[in-house]
Amino acid sequence: MGYDKTAVRKILDAAKAAGRSALTAPEAKGLCEAYGIAVPKEGVASTAADAAKLAAKIGFPVVMKIVSPQILHKTEAGGVMVGVRSAEAAQEAFATIVANARRHDPNATIEGVQVQQMLSGGQEVIIGAVTDPAFGKLVAFGLGGILVEVLKDITFRLAPATREDALSMLDGIAAAEILRGVRGAPSVDREALATMIVNVSQLVTDFPEVSELDLNPVFATPRGATAADVRVVLDFKPPVARYRPSQEVIVRQMNRIMKPDAVAVIGASAENGKIGNSVMKNLINGGYQGAIYPIHPSATEILGKKAYKSVKDVPESVDVAVFAIPAKFVAQALVECGEKKIPGAVLIPSGFAETGNVAGQEEVVAVARKYDIRLMGPNIYGFYYTPKNLCATFCTAYDVKGTAALSSQSGGIGMAIIGFSRSAKMGVSAIVGLGNKSDIDEDDLLTFFEQDDNTQIICQHLEDLKDGRAFAEVARRVSKKKPVVVLKAGRTAVGARAASSHTGALAGNDRIYDDVFRQAGVIRARTLRDLLDFARGIQVLPTPKGNNVVIITGAGGSGVLLSDACVDNGLTLMAMPPDLDAAFRKFIPPFGAAGNPVDITGGEPPTTYQNTVRLGLEDPRIHALILGYWHTIITPPMVFARLMVEVVEAMRAKGIDKPVVASLAGDVEVEEAAEYLYQHRIPAYAYSTEIPVAVLGAKYRWARGAGLIPPP
Amino acid sequence: MGYDKTAVRKILDAAKAAGRSALTAPEAKGLCEAYGIAVPKEGVASTAADAAKLAAKIGFPVVMKIVSPQILHKTEAGGVMVGVRSAEAAQEAFATIVANARRHDPNATIEGVQVQQMLSGGQEVIIGAVTDPAFGKLVAFGLGGILVEVLKDITFRLAPATREDALSMLDGIAAAEILRGVRGAPSVDREALATMIVNVSQLVTDFPEVSELDLNPVFATPRGATAADVRVVLDFKPPVARYRPSQEVIVRQMNRIMKPDAVAVIGASAENGKIGNSVMKNLINGGYQGAIYPIHPSATEILGKKAYKSVKDVPESVDVAVFAIPAKFVAQALVECGEKKIPGAVLIPSGFAETGNVAGQEEVVAVARKYDIRLMGPNIYGFYYTPKNLCATFCTAYDVKGTAALSSQSGGIGMAIIGFSRSAKMGVSAIVGLGNKSDIDEDDLLTFFEQDDNTQIICQHLEDLKDGRAFAEVARRVSKKKPVVVLKAGRTAVGARAASSHTGALAGNDRIYDDVFRQAGVIRARTLRDLLDFARGIQVLPTPKGNNVVIITGAGGSGVLLSDACVDNGLTLMAMPPDLDAAFRKFIPPFGAAGNPVDITGGEPPTTYQNTVRLGLEDPRIHALILGYWHTIITPPMVFARLMVEVVEAMRAKGIDKPVVASLAGDVEVEEAAEYLYQHRIPAYAYSTEIPVAVLGAKYRWARGAGLIPPP
Repeated sequence: MGYDKTAVRKILDAAKAAGRSALTAPEAKGLCEAYGIAVPKEGVASTAADAAKLAAKIGFPVVMKIVSPQILHKTEAGGVMVGVRSAEAAQEAFATIVANARRHDPNATIEGVQVQQMLSGGQEVIIGAVTDPAFGKLVAFGLGGILVEVLKDITFRLAPATREDALSMLDGIAAAEILRGVRGAPSVDREALATMIVNVSQLVTDFPEVSELDLNPVFATPRGATAADVRVVLDFKPPVARYRPSQEVIVRQMNRIMKPDAVAVIGASAENGKIGNSVMKNLINGGYQGAIYPIHPSATEILGKKAYKSVKDVPESVDVAVFAIPAKFVAQALVECGEKKIPGAVLIPSGFAETGNVAGQEEVVAVARKYDIRLMGPNIYGFYYTPKNLCATFCTAYDVKGTAALSSQSGGIGMAIIGFSRSAKMGVSAIVGLGNKSDIDEDDLLTFFEQDDNTQIICQHLEDLKDGRAFAEVARRVSKKKPVVVLKAGRTAVGARAASSHTGALAGNDRIYDDVFRQAGVIRARTLRDLLDFARGIQVLPTPKGNNVVIITGAGGSGVLLSDACVDNGLTLMAMPPDLDAAFRKFIPPFGAAGNPVDITGGEPPTTYQNTVRLGLEDPRIHALILGYWHTIITPPMVFARLMVEVVEAMRAKGIDKPVVASLAGDVEVEEAAEYLYQHRIPAYAYSTEIPVAVLGAKYRWARGAGLIPPP
Repeated sequence: MGYDKTAVRKILDAAKAAGRSALTAPEAKGLCEAYGIAVPKEGVASTAADAAKLAAKIGFPVVMKIVSPQILHKTEAGGVMVGVRSAEAAQEAFATIVANARRHDPNATIEGVQVQQMLSGGQEVIIGAVTDPAFGKLVAFGLGGILVEVLKDITFRLAPATREDALSMLDGIAAAEILRGVRGAPSVDREALATMIVNVSQLVTDFPEVSELDLNPVFATPRGATAADVRVVLDFKPPVARYRPSQEVIVRQMNRIMKPDAVAVIGASAENGKIGNSVMKNLINGGYQGAIYPIHPSATEILGKKAYKSVKDVPESVDVAVFAIPAKFVAQALVECGEKKIPGAVLIPSGFAETGNVAGQEEVVAVARKYDIRLMGPNIYGFYYTPKNLCATFCTAYDVKGTAALSSQSGGIGMAIIGFSRSAKMGVSAIVGLGNKSDIDEDDLLTFFEQDDNTQIICQHLEDLKDGRAFAEVARRVSKKKPVVVLKAGRTAVGARAASSHTGALAGNDRIYDDVFRQAGVIRARTLRDLLDFARGIQVLPTPKGNNVVIITGAGGSGVLLSDACVDNGLTLMAMPPDLDAAFRKFIPPFGAAGNPVDITGGEPPTTYQNTVRLGLEDPRIHALILGYWHTIITPPMVFARLMVEVVEAMRAKGIDKPVVASLAGDVEVEEAAEYLYQHRIPAYAYSTEIPVAVLGAKYRWARGAGLIPPP
């Protein structure tokens, strides 16, 4: 596609020179034509006679609209007349429109009346673009009309969008079916719409000063798409770019910070209850094998380690400095770190931007930039990296090794992560506090964990993204290799920023996060428990090799609820082939139900669970199993659990490793059974049919997003 | 409103006599006119000349439509022409329509062509009625057009609907805003629409043979509503009514069953592992103080109780017989119960309808009806009623007394209820298995628990409703006094029944349950854990006196997630008045945030929690508190928990009892703190911000539904 950038530059420069923040309709149309966006035939008339002549040339009916830089909402101003069918009518319409506009805003500059080919038929849609504070340029798509403005059925993608992105938008709205044609109506021209989306997204990418753009309505027919109206809002202030080193630099620095050979503790203390004391104890008692250098103005030794007055006095190289001193001393100590060429600082202290001390934080960041130090925090609990037995934090130590890396923006949520992990014996590779995110943020962590062999899943709690664009780009790459799960807090707070276009007004903040996360392959957790359960479960589940899920249940009642949960979580209940159905039936009572769920009924001995689960694992057409256990005297919980582990592990030994999750209904003994199953890589939950299926569903969402299995 | 029932009866009788299952358009219009449902001016033309004359009389433009009992989908048959603007055009249209209809179905009887006033403008809506297998007559309302058929934005109420029901339907669709007028459009005539809904609902109630009715589209304008097209489907088969005794009879019988003075165990056994042995042990060891009569063919004594060959041999009166014998012996033993005048039988045995033995179950039900015995089951675990220390079940005994009554259709879910209850030390008044529901079902239980002073909340798991109409009627009454929570399994299975009307096709089974539950004031649990957490939490929370909820949190991060959860659960975060804001600020650090959430910040001592929570309880403008605790060295979990209980209990002693829930973020010690808080009527959850708010939200939904507090 050839884009005429010169034409656009000229129009925008003229608007800038005139100090305008919006384009006139003809100018906006000029942008469209330069970027291959189809618009109706039209012209601008400056007299009523002109209007009649122009209309006759275009062909009736025509639409007539006021042209005035001050009048953005033309309809409300009485500045639009549709269905003008003759030369006389056009003359009359001109007079009416101009009179209405004058009445609406006596000071408006009226440049004329636009006469335009009247489009009709087809499906009305909206295509637009907005500039989001976190994500930058986004392209939007929705169905036109009042109904959609009310229902907010609109979808967003990062600009520039690819053709695939654009096509996914057509399927990304609730009313997607309409575009494919319902009740005998033909399908719209999907390629034409996709091209228009791509072109809009490229236009705003090439010209960042186009801050909002609306094509509303676009008439989409079976043979093409034409934008009937175009509005363009400009903003010539350049956005402030956040510091963003290259991937290579991030990896080099983050590896030294997260896997240090030497740690300095600035503000180390021998006194119980001090943060600098807790950090020292956690480092030592956590079993960290690297060098530990306490920094203290007067002490010569702290907790058996030789102390130094300044990091500059440490004779060896230092990888990371953990700060446990009051905010006001941080900047100076950081200068010393810079002079010592320490690549990373973990800023535990609070008292910065979160308490209003923005200047203090900016000062620290300036030092960091000057000396090329990466900052974690400030206002954090620190971090854990279990493969190095490293607890660089003032919280309690944690040592259960696993492959889940978690991070939180908030300290409270960090504590909940530690408590849950300990309670559930969840293995983790890292827990990181990000706090004020003055520098290191989620995309830096993603970049590190991407290449960290000790991490297989990354779970992040966040309240905002300092650079959503960077996050989305990195997450899109990383999520292809490792599951990325995000709990976005502040989900329901609708962005309060002013919006002067339709598309802008439609942009509920959270819908943007939702769409961008999906585009980036990120699995979204809706609640804190979801984040924690996904972190725990996804890491122990193998990746499914296909979409066929089978439920095997002792309790028919659980089977129904598990089926509900499958639908809720986008899982595909396999349609049971007749031969497989017959094979299952051999093991279950005649009144049990094969099909799917396989209902083995409640009164069965352990062998029935064993035989049916073995069959489910052996048959290559089945890709994942959900077990519904019912506590009975004949098959007590631990008998069931041990047997399931036996069957599943025997299969794993043969190279068959399918995801298996379990829901346990029964008396309190099922809790021990769930624990035992979980420790053997079968995520199992007592008294819940929803959570095990949600965990499996999250694994599936990731596998599909990463392209490892096809969509269902 | 005067309804002309005679006119309707005549039309329906004619259709019945002709063996028809649908009405012609003029007949359908006749129904509408008899029930005050506005329809367009029209007539039927049998020749082209007639059509022209008729059209001229009605006034142009007109719509013309084929009239044929065989052609239901007129548009698809080419049998509709709109916008006919002259007498000549009407003549032509007549010929075209008849020709199209002949081509579409050469065997169709063509009765003529309807000529109708052409409606336009206003908002198109759909009003209809369906006959649901569980709920009977339902009235439906939605917006018209393809978009709504695609988005399925439709709402249902039981017929007959009141004016209030009808008005609530206008607000019950996602696109409700449109009816109130958006972007300068006027509001539709809400009263006219409500009247039409009421009239439709009355019509199908008065004439049950009208099985489906569609008014589609209805043109709703600012001054009235007119149904442009009417379709009526008939079904003259009378529905089979389920046995439904009067409320008084239910109460009398259920009181004897649930609170018996004497229990017979048919199939009692001294042999370990037998169901009849488990039942005996549970009765005896559970501490039941009434008489226990083991029934056994040969034993003279079982577990120290004198045994009898038949219930008829028991010298005293018996209130309930628990059956622990194989299915094939049940009917005969039940006859003996009947002869003994025992009012209730608890049928534990399986082997009835659930295994295909429908006849066996029908036989048992016939015996029960003959002798006026109420049946619980068959295929159940029995039931518990803790105020009588009664464990009439073969499962393990349960003795934690409380005020929640739970029931389950499935045995597996019943076991999960028992396990969860024991694990959480949840007090219950009753746990009841309903199984096949051959007789006693959810509405019988509701009727009993309504008047049972030991029960304050009723939680039911169900897969279907044998008599949804009875359930809805009873639930509507009971939910005004006590919260009714329902987990409806099979939520995602769309009803597979054939539907021949638009409204019918739109009726996703679950949407009906959703709407009827809401209409009946039932709180719907979406998952098993929700049901259990609601049962546990709602009973300990006092009823809020208003909508103002305040979050007090030590962790800012929890505050954000708790706010999200408030929005998700329909809770109102109080807008903080300036004086109250100032009062909170006195207790918190200067960089803490008052407003709502009140963020006291993480480093605060116990007194800060104490002072702010006390203020929150004391100020009468605040109606409920959500606490976000952050585990720190300064305020450890149990210190926080004890202090909160102290503050809350001091207020309770003063007569101030507001709902307080808590989310605890911290290391594993927070689990003990949560437990302690819960035991003192403060529902508290570790590692979750969502669950405590969901519990509070459920209490609010009930209080609003019961009219105890206004809608937010």
